[in-house]
Amino acid sequence: MRADARDNRARIMTAADDVFGRSPSASTDDVARLAGVGIATVFRHFPTKTELLEAVLTLRLERLRERARELSGDAEPGKAFFEFFTQVVSESASKLAIAEALTAAGAVAGAEAQEAGRGMRSAFNDLLTAAQRAGAVRTDAEFPEVYALLIGASRGATAAKLDPAVRDRMLTLIYAGLKPYA
Amino acid sequence: MRADARDNRARIMTAADDVFGRSPSASTDDVARLAGVGIATVFRHFPTKTELLEAVLTLRLERLRERARELSGDAEPGKAFFEFFTQVVSESASKLAIAEALTAAGAVAGAEAQEAGRGMRSAFNDLLTAAQRAGAVRTDAEFPEVYALLIGASRGATAAKLDPAVRDRMLTLIYAGLKPYA
Repeated sequence: MRADARDNRARIMTAADDVFGRSPSASTDDVARLAGVGIATVFRHFPTKTELLEAVLTLRLERLRERARELSGDAEPGKAFFEFFTQVVSESASKLAIAEALTAAGAVAGAEAQEAGRGMRSAFNDLLTAAQRAGAVRTDAEFPEVYALLIGASRGATAAKLDPAVRDRMLTLIYAGLKPYA
Repeated sequence: MRADARDNRARIMTAADDVFGRSPSASTDDVARLAGVGIATVFRHFPTKTELLEAVLTLRLERLRERARELSGDAEPGKAFFEFFTQVVSESASKLAIAEALTAAGAVAGAEAQEAGRGMRSAFNDLLTAAQRAGAVRTDAEFPEVYALLIGASRGATAAKLDPAVRDRMLTLIYAGLKPYA
């Protein structure tokens, strides 16, 4: 791919992340406009809206996976776990796409997004295990229910269009339940 | 309304609750078939699918409101609060419609469903307050975040198609966070 084509692709992805993040039903036209490219250029890179959505979803999941991996080297595993949890939920509140990407990472999404979703879940699991070893999260909490909590908190924050203060207080309650018994 | 018309209406509602509960995109035909009435009878009672959905959603919310009111007289307010929370989340897991009804009870739903939604939230708030007075729920948890937790747990359970065991362990974590400090 030539450098200007690569630039265009990156600009389209950034615009699509923004546009679909605000409204999953937005049009490819809106994306082209924000990216400052013609609609033909968008279709050259992404022949269908589904392919564009898939690419954005994959990028989102890959970024979350990278963030989780970065945090897994943290000297304070408890802090790292809760920071990642908070980041996922905070982004969901302002960007519907995250929550839908998370749900979609199962059956509906294509192979790339599924792979990225698996990577993200695996990195999140590592953060959980490290936090439990460090005594910051109760050890009887297993991955499936902690992941269900993450999805639930994300969707609860998105569905209820929570203001950040309520979202943070909701997270305080969830984190209290994840702490080891006193 | 004549008695046989009332019977038909009740059968259509019960069938619609079941059909749309399993698949919100099901057709009015499916409802007529399960109810054992002709499609013309369905349309006489509910001229559009939206009106039928609205009626089912309202019925769901009214039943939850009634359940919450029944429980509010319970001698053990803590038990009553957690029992209601569990019932809402359990029904959501098997019936998508509940979670969508809860979300829809905001802007999209019509006046009747909104009224029923307000009634349900108000009854849930009474359960929360009673449980807090009884020392079963931490008193610094305010209604907005507890309601966001209820929505989140319902949507998390639905989105993740949780098996009941994972759902129950997720609820155990949430309830641990709602308990007063040890």
